[in-house]
Amino acid sequence: MFAKTSMQICLKRWPGILGVLTVALAYSITFAQSDRKFQKPSFPATTTEKFDPSTVPAYARSHIKAYAYIDSNLARHNEHLRRWVRQRSISAQNDGVQQMAAMLRDDLKELGFKEAEVVPTSGHPGVWGYYDAGAAKTLAVYMMYDVQPVEPTGWQVDAFAGAIVDHPLGRVLMARGATNQKGPERAFLNAIEAIIKSGEGMPVNLMVLAEGEEELGSPHYPELIGKYADRLKSASGVLFPFNGQGPDGAVTMNLGVKGIVYFELEARGNPGGGPKTAEVHGSLKAITDSPVWRLNQALASLTSPDGNTILVPGYYDSIRKPTQEEERLVNGMLVSWTEREAMMRQGLGVDRWVDGISGRDSLMRYLFDTTLNIDGIWGGYTGPGVKTILPHMATAKVDSRLVPNQTPDEALRLIRVYLDKKGFTDIVLRKISGYPPAQTSVDTPLVRSMIGTYNKYGMIPSVAPRLAGSAPYHVFTDTLKLPLVAGGLGHGSGAHAPNEYMVIEPKAGSKVAGLADIEKFYVDMLFALSSAR
Amino acid sequence: MFAKTSMQICLKRWPGILGVLTVALAYSITFAQSDRKFQKPSFPATTTEKFDPSTVPAYARSHIKAYAYIDSNLARHNEHLRRWVRQRSISAQNDGVQQMAAMLRDDLKELGFKEAEVVPTSGHPGVWGYYDAGAAKTLAVYMMYDVQPVEPTGWQVDAFAGAIVDHPLGRVLMARGATNQKGPERAFLNAIEAIIKSGEGMPVNLMVLAEGEEELGSPHYPELIGKYADRLKSASGVLFPFNGQGPDGAVTMNLGVKGIVYFELEARGNPGGGPKTAEVHGSLKAITDSPVWRLNQALASLTSPDGNTILVPGYYDSIRKPTQEEERLVNGMLVSWTEREAMMRQGLGVDRWVDGISGRDSLMRYLFDTTLNIDGIWGGYTGPGVKTILPHMATAKVDSRLVPNQTPDEALRLIRVYLDKKGFTDIVLRKISGYPPAQTSVDTPLVRSMIGTYNKYGMIPSVAPRLAGSAPYHVFTDTLKLPLVAGGLGHGSGAHAPNEYMVIEPKAGSKVAGLADIEKFYVDMLFALSSAR
Repeated sequence: MFAKTSMQICLKRWPGILGVLTVALAYSITFAQSDRKFQKPSFPATTTEKFDPSTVPAYARSHIKAYAYIDSNLARHNEHLRRWVRQRSISAQNDGVQQMAAMLRDDLKELGFKEAEVVPTSGHPGVWGYYDAGAAKTLAVYMMYDVQPVEPTGWQVDAFAGAIVDHPLGRVLMARGATNQKGPERAFLNAIEAIIKSGEGMPVNLMVLAEGEEELGSPHYPELIGKYADRLKSASGVLFPFNGQGPDGAVTMNLGVKGIVYFELEARGNPGGGPKTAEVHGSLKAITDSPVWRLNQALASLTSPDGNTILVPGYYDSIRKPTQEEERLVNGMLVSWTEREAMMRQGLGVDRWVDGISGRDSLMRYLFDTTLNIDGIWGGYTGPGVKTILPHMATAKVDSRLVPNQTPDEALRLIRVYLDKKGFTDIVLRKISGYPPAQTSVDTPLVRSMIGTYNKYGMIPSVAPRLAGSAPYHVFTDTLKLPLVAGGLGHGSGAHAPNEYMVIEPKAGSKVAGLADIEKFYVDMLFALSSAR
Repeated sequence: MFAKTSMQICLKRWPGILGVLTVALAYSITFAQSDRKFQKPSFPATTTEKFDPSTVPAYARSHIKAYAYIDSNLARHNEHLRRWVRQRSISAQNDGVQQMAAMLRDDLKELGFKEAEVVPTSGHPGVWGYYDAGAAKTLAVYMMYDVQPVEPTGWQVDAFAGAIVDHPLGRVLMARGATNQKGPERAFLNAIEAIIKSGEGMPVNLMVLAEGEEELGSPHYPELIGKYADRLKSASGVLFPFNGQGPDGAVTMNLGVKGIVYFELEARGNPGGGPKTAEVHGSLKAITDSPVWRLNQALASLTSPDGNTILVPGYYDSIRKPTQEEERLVNGMLVSWTEREAMMRQGLGVDRWVDGISGRDSLMRYLFDTTLNIDGIWGGYTGPGVKTILPHMATAKVDSRLVPNQTPDEALRLIRVYLDKKGFTDIVLRKISGYPPAQTSVDTPLVRSMIGTYNKYGMIPSVAPRLAGSAPYHVFTDTLKLPLVAGGLGHGSGAHAPNEYMVIEPKAGSKVAGLADIEKFYVDMLFALSSAR
């Protein structure tokens, strides 16, 4: 998914909360100030209370008919996952997208969905499905059927072969989309099949609304939501099937996401100076303005010299204080964070966080701070050796993660106003995509049922108020006012990277669930969520 | 050549000086100050005297045996140029370099050079040739036999086919190397052949020292010079055969070049922060330092917000005032500059020079100011659409043109000291290549003979104290203390670009010389230079 790499990181690094911690009273974080005029928000602790997920009652029922069906159909279920990843569906390259949409639609039909159709949008199509269980309650299911490109290269197998590979964690499905998101999604559909075909009986109606543009920033998902808003509003909540375990089996639940605004800043020669149509010889710098210098200066004006404090006036103003619930969640997850952040840095190849922070400081900044990040920058000659040119243009891709109550358009407006005020009216600011943050309360029955399902399996989750990454959940939480939970058992990694995998058959002794247990968890989860009140 | 695009621009845009101009007395230039603390050097006029090239006596003799030989061998001579450009010799890609060196050596042998050999260096080989005319006087000849890559694409012919093409200016040889530098160099050898074979009699001994790395910044030319320094010192001067005409036939002579230092600045994740081994997810910006921001901030610290004033303390300190001779030359070329600079901007696609300067201001800054130019910058994701990463490295290619008395190593030292002082110790500064400026006085017999040869043809040259671009002439002017002249008739363009050409047969009425006249000029030039005293 859009923020998958980060999600994977979180899932890997945050174990279940197993201990009890007393946080020092009123411990105040003051983030290092690189610029005295523009101070990052501080998040002093105002409570020592903490949320303890182990107190949520474990889901108590068992669904043995469905479990037995899963066990006796496991090989075929595994083939469903392989069939899905073999179907290319690279949204950025429009490669196989239509075929994957059709495959999803056909699978829903095969499962007995009363409605199953490919839904045109202004971009790649969506897929709508409605399963009528004759139940009083309806759950919505968010799905994405697109995948990232396979670049950068470095795959040890054909990324679209559905290879089953021996891995330090066990037997894994190694393919593009294995964990992001086809593997868990098709495992979820396998679970539905088991409930239906085993005679266990579907406890809820389901509304599936899948998109084929998640990897593009979900530009047309609001359009899809708009078409089915009236029907979706009748749902009691939204599920997103998701491999929720780290490689050690630890589970993290994220109750929200940061928003994002993704944009490009570009400098080109223009009537005010610089070459307008093509690069010129570098010696002309003596009398010719340089678009690369302009872009560089404009970018540099946005942050402190360390790149960590945003100097755009007002950029931090709309950020609200953490709520009591958020503080309780943070307090609850602090032990595991403190234990894990060094391991997380090691995995990332990062020796220290910004300003050398750690513990509550780093956790708060990770979850509660907005960002300004350069994803890429390019201009002029980038090959080996020497070429002396004055380029006519330079471009940077920039993203800002948004926390409540920031919005994409207001963030861009502030940046534009600031650039203009600093004299950078020549710099083009081009919005690419964006959406606001989203959040669901830990006190909703849906979330508590989900925690309870984990607790049944002894997988007490670490519950984070949000993910530091982004996903378009706002269409559910804000537009439709529905609670959303993402999760499931299972572990995968390598989303957006080579050798993406999902564990199918874990090594003996591993706490990571294999495909059968993943599906059984989804069975329980559906029953638990359907009875949530 | 290394600075060819700029040379071509100059040659196109600066006509012969035909008029007389009175420059306002003591007109003082003060360059716009983007930063009050770091003012660019100003170059107030201290004299109204101007150098008038038309007062140099025209070369008076004629060499009709050689001329006749040229006329009757023109088709074969033309084939020599085509043969040369058909031999690939892309130094950056090590493509055909050895073969071209061998071809040059064989051609020198064929002409009767007593010594002709390929000379190994730590890089691509050089070629040494000695023609013993039994004369009292010896001239050195600088040559380059390498060419630029053919990228960017967009060629209307095979770049290595030696195509003769109809062009608005007449019949042209269109090929990589046509004007930069194989065309004029082989035309020069054709002229030598004509002098020898026609019985005209060579008036001087020749020492040819060619390099195959000019397009790489001549990293090993000093090594070549070192090997032949004792013998070269006995020469009375150095020639560089060169298409000296613009498309309108106007001739510019450049008596020197700026130096250059070319380097890379690079930021990578390191023990102080940031990802060290690979990109990480963009959402980690909240707690992770960004090498791209660091590079960006380091670069921005080097210049004023407009990118035109260098803020490195001391960077301008070693720049000497223009000499009286330089001022006289500038005064002499000011009419043509003023007439031509608007046309030059049009050709470049530049609406205005920096700070809107023009006339003497722009000419002085063009010729006398140092620069800091970003040739290229890259880091992270540079493809279409959205990818949210925090890159682990970012790099910029930067060059600085050096004027007397700047030196490459001192320029880099000042930048390093400044970056360290500003806290950018994490930024790697990597020197790629560099050499100091070079200059020859207009009062040397060699230069006056060259002007006199132009004057014989009614092509009164515009004489510039230097080119704004760079060439490794310092090895001759500084190391060997020899005067150097670059020139010849002929016109070409597109060096370093697609569809590079040299005019072989100009349109009727054109003032551009065709191949026969180019060769006859070189005959006269050799005789004129040989008799210079």
